[in-house]
Amino acid sequence: MPDAVRDAIVREASNCDHYPDSFSRRLREKIAAFEKVRADWVFCGNGASDVIFRLPRAVQAEKVMLTAPTFSDYERAARSFGADVFRHRLSVTDGFTLDSSFINAVRREKPDMVFVCNPNNPTGKLTKTRLIKDLLNYCRQANAWLVVDECFLDFVEQAAEYTSKTFLKKYSNLVILKAFTKTFGLPGIRLGYALCADDALISSLYFHGADWPVSNLAQAAGIAALDGAESFIKQTVEYVSTERAAIEKELIRLGYKHFESKTNYVFLQNPYPYDLREELDKMGIRIRPCGNYHGLDESFYRIAVSTNQNNFKLISAIEEITRLL
Amino acid sequence: MPDAVRDAIVREASNCDHYPDSFSRRLREKIAAFEKVRADWVFCGNGASDVIFRLPRAVQAEKVMLTAPTFSDYERAARSFGADVFRHRLSVTDGFTLDSSFINAVRREKPDMVFVCNPNNPTGKLTKTRLIKDLLNYCRQANAWLVVDECFLDFVEQAAEYTSKTFLKKYSNLVILKAFTKTFGLPGIRLGYALCADDALISSLYFHGADWPVSNLAQAAGIAALDGAESFIKQTVEYVSTERAAIEKELIRLGYKHFESKTNYVFLQNPYPYDLREELDKMGIRIRPCGNYHGLDESFYRIAVSTNQNNFKLISAIEEITRLL
Repeated sequence: MPDAVRDAIVREASNCDHYPDSFSRRLREKIAAFEKVRADWVFCGNGASDVIFRLPRAVQAEKVMLTAPTFSDYERAARSFGADVFRHRLSVTDGFTLDSSFINAVRREKPDMVFVCNPNNPTGKLTKTRLIKDLLNYCRQANAWLVVDECFLDFVEQAAEYTSKTFLKKYSNLVILKAFTKTFGLPGIRLGYALCADDALISSLYFHGADWPVSNLAQAAGIAALDGAESFIKQTVEYVSTERAAIEKELIRLGYKHFESKTNYVFLQNPYPYDLREELDKMGIRIRPCGNYHGLDESFYRIAVSTNQNNFKLISAIEEITRLL
Repeated sequence: MPDAVRDAIVREASNCDHYPDSFSRRLREKIAAFEKVRADWVFCGNGASDVIFRLPRAVQAEKVMLTAPTFSDYERAARSFGADVFRHRLSVTDGFTLDSSFINAVRREKPDMVFVCNPNNPTGKLTKTRLIKDLLNYCRQANAWLVVDECFLDFVEQAAEYTSKTFLKKYSNLVILKAFTKTFGLPGIRLGYALCADDALISSLYFHGADWPVSNLAQAAGIAALDGAESFIKQTVEYVSTERAAIEKELIRLGYKHFESKTNYVFLQNPYPYDLREELDKMGIRIRPCGNYHGLDESFYRIAVSTNQNNFKLISAIEEITRLL
């Protein structure tokens, strides 16, 4: 969490007796400059989750297509609006890679809204922009929306190569999701946004949810986080990739099956006959069991890259558990 | 805005690198003590507006009944989910009073969700608990939900006599809405809540909207606001009712038609052939024109009770405008 963010919140604390700007104008200008898009392509919400919940309603979606596994909020948002949900199962044998079979599934099912999480949650697996482009072309001719969730992309070393932002101008059926939660380590703030070149969709996002979605404090925090964002992100990416590699190396040595996550968490499968989460919990360490993701089972876990000290503790703990087998 | 709230935000600013408690447990305990209800009857959202948007989805509403005029978010939330909306027109001749003709309209239209704003926005008019009770009885046997929005009730001198909180235990089809925005002068925070004795409805409110609806900062602010809430509210009520009476007296003297608002705004009708908002705007004073409320026209205005100095400026400005006629 950047220090400037804390300072901005402290400064803004006295202004809470005024309504926030419902359109988050200053914040949107900052985001536009950071993302190199137009400010009127930006919609800010109470976390990316708020934006995800507005989306199916904003386009009156009837059929939503997802991958399995992926982030569970897409399905919850779709079902909350009453849309049908179809899942395309990704295969463990090719490391949960999204390939052209997904486009075939989309052609077959004819959804009006498709979600792709890039990199995917919880696998950390990236999808190539070539595939996204093919999907965009198909969706455009089929009058469908493609939502690409890039909430974890800023942690990826080759982010510039994998972002779909360059498609926004040409494809007005593309929506990109981002979050301050992830990039700036600010989950306590609740601030996320959508990027889309379609004016009507942006208006519809405002209509289909609470007024004043972003508090004064979150707007001030977001503006402050974006000052010096580039160097902050560069440092974060370097740190995360070094630490993630160190954790993964140890996990492989200890016999765990690891998948090539490119973001700020490790994704692994436990070949041993115990519940890794439970064992680590006894030692005061929390990891994310992935058994409740569609397309995964109890043997999968997602582990956040934390401080160097915490990562060391984690590895020592897993080593101890594994040795006791 | 209470000083303790600013201090709490400042203290919490360093904690934004942690996820908020999605269930706002500490805050809900505080609200429960303040409202004298059970903590598991409380759902906290990103402003009352967030709760209003979750409600039609949470009960899968098909037909929603409203008064006209009333707060526009109920209709927007209902339409966003795809529910039909019916409006019962309140009559200017009896000061927009809600009476038993509303129950008859509800019987006729058979909605599955009914909204009553008490006191009503923008009229400031109160509805008696006897009518609310009749409505609750009808709604219960018709399997309908009654939502009573009490966001402006804490400004009312006889709030204890007019609240529907006492019905919560007996009527699990009752939902009450409250907001920190109004009571504590904290619109910049975005914090509102629902009270309801039905467990399934509370769970459904969590399901039908963003995770972590309330940020760390808003939770801390809410907890701080509730310390010493009683004396803060008592002072506010005294102040508001004195100032409101003074504004109303002057408006009557100047020939404006005033309606008996019981809360922190004045509601009036302009008998003169000019746009009061426009004239005041030229003098740097902003009031709320009510022409865009269903059931009102351009001659109606809502004016917030502000600081003594601002109220004085307002009255002087209106006097000047009226004299120039």
